Amino acid sequence: MIKRIAVLTTGGDAPGMNAAIRGVVRYGIYKKLEVMGVFRGWWGLINEDLKLFDHRSVSGIVNLGGTILKTMRCTEFRTKEGQERAYQTIKKHAIDAILVIGGNGSFSAADAFSKNYNIPCVGIAASIDNDINGIDMTIGWDTAINTALNAIDNIRDTATSMERIFVVEVMGRESGSIALAVALAGGCEDVIIPERKLDFASMCHDIVNGNVKGKISWIIVVAEGAGSAQDFAKKITTLTNLETRALVLGHIQRGGRPTALSRDIALNLSRAAIDCLLEAKGNKAVGIIAGKVASVDFEKTLFKKETNIEAAYNLIKVMS
Amino acid sequence: MIKRIAVLTTGGDAPGMNAAIRGVVRYGIYKKLEVMGVFRGWWGLINEDLKLFDHRSVSGIVNLGGTILKTMRCTEFRTKEGQERAYQTIKKHAIDAILVIGGNGSFSAADAFSKNYNIPCVGIAASIDNDINGIDMTIGWDTAINTALNAIDNIRDTATSMERIFVVEVMGRESGSIALAVALAGGCEDVIIPERKLDFASMCHDIVNGNVKGKISWIIVVAEGAGSAQDFAKKITTLTNLETRALVLGHIQRGGRPTALSRDIALNLSRAAIDCLLEAKGNKAVGIIAGKVASVDFEKTLFKKETNIEAAYNLIKVMS
Amino acid sequence: MIKRIAVLTTGGDAPGMNAAIRGVVRYGIYKKLEVMGVFRGWWGLINEDLKLFDHRSVSGIVNLGGTILKTMRCTEFRTKEGQERAYQTIKKHAIDAILVIGGNGSFSAADAFSKNYNIPCVGIAASIDNDINGIDMTIGWDTAINTALNAIDNIRDTATSMERIFVVEVMGRESGSIALAVALAGGCEDVIIPERKLDFASMCHDIVNGNVKGKISWIIVVAEGAGSAQDFAKKITTLTNLETRALVLGHIQRGGRPTALSRDIALNLSRAAIDCLLEAKGNKAVGIIAGKVASVDFEKTLFKKETNIEAAYNLIKVMS
Amino acid sequence: MIKRIAVLTTGGDAPGMNAAIRGVVRYGIYKKLEVMGVFRGWWGLINEDLKLFDHRSVSGIVNLGGTILKTMRCTEFRTKEGQERAYQTIKKHAIDAILVIGGNGSFSAADAFSKNYNIPCVGIAASIDNDINGIDMTIGWDTAINTALNAIDNIRDTATSMERIFVVEVMGRESGSIALAVALAGGCEDVIIPERKLDFASMCHDIVNGNVKGKISWIIVVAEGAGSAQDFAKKITTLTNLETRALVLGHIQRGGRPTALSRDIALNLSRAAIDCLLEAKGNKAVGIIAGKVASVDFEKTLFKKETNIEAAYNLIKVMS
Repeated sequence: MIKRIAVLTTGGDAPGMNAAIRGVVRYGIYKKLEVMGVFRGWWGLINEDLKLFDHRSVSGIVNLGGTILKTMRCTEFRTKEGQERAYQTIKKHAIDAILVIGGNGSFSAADAFSKNYNIPCVGIAASIDNDINGIDMTIGWDTAINTALNAIDNIRDTATSMERIFVVEVMGRESGSIALAVALAGGCEDVIIPERKLDFASMCHDIVNGNVKGKISWIIVVAEGAGSAQDFAKKITTLTNLETRALVLGHIQRGGRPTALSRDIALNLSRAAIDCLLEAKGNKAVGIIAGKVASVDFEKTLFKKETNIEAAYNLIKVMS
Repeated sequence: MIKRIAVLTTGGDAPGMNAAIRGVVRYGIYKKLEVMGVFRGWWGLINEDLKLFDHRSVSGIVNLGGTILKTMRCTEFRTKEGQERAYQTIKKHAIDAILVIGGNGSFSAADAFSKNYNIPCVGIAASIDNDINGIDMTIGWDTAINTALNAIDNIRDTATSMERIFVVEVMGRESGSIALAVALAGGCEDVIIPERKLDFASMCHDIVNGNVKGKISWIIVVAEGAGSAQDFAKKITTLTNLETRALVLGHIQRGGRPTALSRDIALNLSRAAIDCLLEAKGNKAVGIIAGKVASVDFEKTLFKKETNIEAAYNLIKVMS
Repeated sequence: MIKRIAVLTTGGDAPGMNAAIRGVVRYGIYKKLEVMGVFRGWWGLINEDLKLFDHRSVSGIVNLGGTILKTMRCTEFRTKEGQERAYQTIKKHAIDAILVIGGNGSFSAADAFSKNYNIPCVGIAASIDNDINGIDMTIGWDTAINTALNAIDNIRDTATSMERIFVVEVMGRESGSIALAVALAGGCEDVIIPERKLDFASMCHDIVNGNVKGKISWIIVVAEGAGSAQDFAKKITTLTNLETRALVLGHIQRGGRPTALSRDIALNLSRAAIDCLLEAKGNKAVGIIAGKVASVDFEKTLFKKETNIEAAYNLIKVMS
Repeated sequence: MIKRIAVLTTGGDAPGMNAAIRGVVRYGIYKKLEVMGVFRGWWGLINEDLKLFDHRSVSGIVNLGGTILKTMRCTEFRTKEGQERAYQTIKKHAIDAILVIGGNGSFSAADAFSKNYNIPCVGIAASIDNDINGIDMTIGWDTAINTALNAIDNIRDTATSMERIFVVEVMGRESGSIALAVALAGGCEDVIIPERKLDFASMCHDIVNGNVKGKISWIIVVAEGAGSAQDFAKKITTLTNLETRALVLGHIQRGGRPTALSRDIALNLSRAAIDCLLEAKGNKAVGIIAGKVASVDFEKTLFKKETNIEAAYNLIKVMS
């Protein structure tokens, strides 16, 4: 029977992680569980950096970006020794199960650890990249999109006023999920993503063609997984002889007040994660699937996310 | 065969309506249709206030709140004479079908008109209230929630600093959809919605109880359909003898830059609406259903939306 | 010689108060002072609710609205007994001087207390109302204006889309300072403030006249000190027979992330306040005067602020 | 006697330029002037790209970033031929005076042109860089600072959660004005600006020292005029062996909804500029000086802005 659980955040921080932590702690307590907060992800388990949380430990954090539990890369956890030390902490503190708030890398680590030491783990899908296979929407994605969109809206002012071509790089690791959402919402002229082969000559042709017709401002969104804004900007200038500006939005997309959606998802998923544990359904990740809270096996999340981006891409081109 | 369509916005304006207008015009043109914009909703059909739109008519509007087509209440359209005059405009301008961007009131009118005059109508679900039966998410709802949430976050600062009880009224007509989303995301202590019987004595008991334990700041969200913030604030003071402040967020929730989600939904729905028309599926409304773009018969949207709010309500209480 | 100071926040909270607290603590420590934080304003002095702050006590608060020291009305401090008890706390904790972050009411109390007990007090001008005589700009005003302006911008969307007349009430107590700034920046059609006699008939005449010429949307800003939005809206409808909507922005104007200006002023004023104390210049308030950090005698702040609003009002009318 | 004026925007766009255009047009008309809008700065004068504006030409733009008049670099205007062609346009359209909304480069060009052709020019100080000598505050600066500050606040979330060192480059050309304001308001640990010699070894010593004491997150703001974020980040890593992240905020700082201050300044300066013209005070720039609207001779603006940054820098260090 599960009496005490531990919660940790791993991987890149995502807006809404704090809401998820709050959710896990408060819903856990409501379900008569003890909840320990582990600091700096797996590193905290290995190094026994954790403490018992109560209701008030998570006051006033629902609207904060980042994670009060902090997060850290931890290569040691991939070693047998690291996992062994983590397990010692778990035994010492009588922890019965672990909730991992993070992305697919985190779930892969949790899956292995869980199987090696027979400790139930449930994942809560949190990632600005929204790149977890089997899950349609993760905590943080909506906030990152809106942050990037604010930037794009700002850039549009200058692009229009100075009649320039901007190449704007957004985050997303190997995924074009942020780029596609932002390019559509921002009315951008084109988008370059890893999931789709770029016809560079055709893109430049469009630019030159538009230029001839008087369309001089242009915003092209690049997903970081598809290449660098700087490189594309240079290549466009080379091919078209038109001036370009490159911009990398970078880490501003990770932080900030989470949107309502990122918070509401976080709180709902934290309830679902604990319910999963209490129903003895370990080694699963909870996320939004087909518009609802649902769960998926860890194994499934380890595959590359399948996406059908052609319709999304076409819509961007039609709307631009 | 459909060659020319008209698009109009009716009912209360919702952020993302302009994105939907853009979507209809540009996707329509892409599909070789002519698109006429009708001003001030049904009034514009009756009074022949419309014009042919081209690609550039909808430039630079994707990020604007409100509706460039304007919207207006029009009781005349509910009369036979009004509909007849509207039909004359349609015939005169050789309009083959109508796209109605609005809520369930708009769809009801469109449904009747369509049947009376055999003119295909498709609705695009846009309403900050998200109260359309059969549809999970409408254009504008996400923006309204985030606007209300910003306000709640601000109020939280004062509630905490001055240790006060706030009763905050949000929009939603007969629906508690904004109230529930905002109360959860804002970490609010309670929520009063039309869909759920209020146990007022118990709520006041909680407040007094919290007060004794040192929890002095309190935010209660009221959906407008459940009563007025002013009244509830007074009643709470009467029963608990504690000072309260009432606040009505009102029309700030209608306007503002649409969020990424409100824009992306709008652009996707506009494509779907035109595809519906071209596939001869009239008298339907398109919206987000189970996380995807889908359509529902007008008839279905006329019923009161069924909601299961108990789980949502409980989560708010557990998280507060 | 001053070794230990106490800092408190009183009156209504204002965005940037936390930045000022941070400033006082960190600059105080830098100047080798000990700094005690007093909770809930004068109440905390009376009830010995205070503690020694260190560098880290004010970490991570520069961007937070509200005040971590909380604030409270305290009628007891206006009595001899209240002041005596406050003085006992001061003696007991060896406090040499007091920094009061607040508005003119706070300065008046500080002035009296200081003279009665010969304890140096310096005020830091913080008030969203910007109504302190002798001071051009207070902490929090800029943030409140921007919050109100966001609301006005949102309302503009609906006012334009639905072609309506809105009467929007903003804060400011007896001052029209927020109303004037917002009405100008928001492109509002008129503004009603306590400092200026309203020609109501002329205003209604303008509305009707505009209406005839096709200008149907209209936003009128009302400073709370000049009357209620509800009342004005009703009166306009009575006189013009046009539909109106009233909106009270209320407490959303108090909270929220402080703007850069509110924070930068706060940090600069906190330095100036401590420098004042160390130069033995008590019974002064620091604020922005003629674009610079400067100080003014408490006595001066007790008078009603003189303002010349005719030019500002005319500009609004010309620009609308 | 001045009957017809022309207004243009030159140099980089700044948020609030549209408010200034609105101000010039509406106040100009109020003063019985005719106002022509010139497109793309000096280029529009040279190429006769201008038109008569009326009251409604500037409707709905007060809250928009960028400039509806567009702006463009124009090397031709520095030639005798270019100026001659511009003058022909002026004569042809009976333009009596020119209002130039822009920065010091624009004023320099206006000064020369004005003297060569005896055409009165008045400048309206608009520049996000706030680098105009003799003027304390320009249109757009406040908005740019707040945009950069939003980004810094976001980055703080990740810097704290992942315990990392960020080097963030902000705009400002040869000026550290944005960097100083943002670093103070953002609670940043250090700032590198062109006006101040950097003690790089000491900065790195601070970082390492902080790191030893447990302070692991760090944000350093770099003004673009002082070097590149990328370079500084690399150098810090080389010297301290600590991981760093570089971020260039870039053009997002140019655009976006202008803040209340940027708009209010713009509208006040536009009135002042026209009053200057009507009082036959040409070859002056209007801006905010010592907290008030005032003017300065063009000649003065051509010098490098004198700044006293030591106190500002010290405050940042004390507050971090």
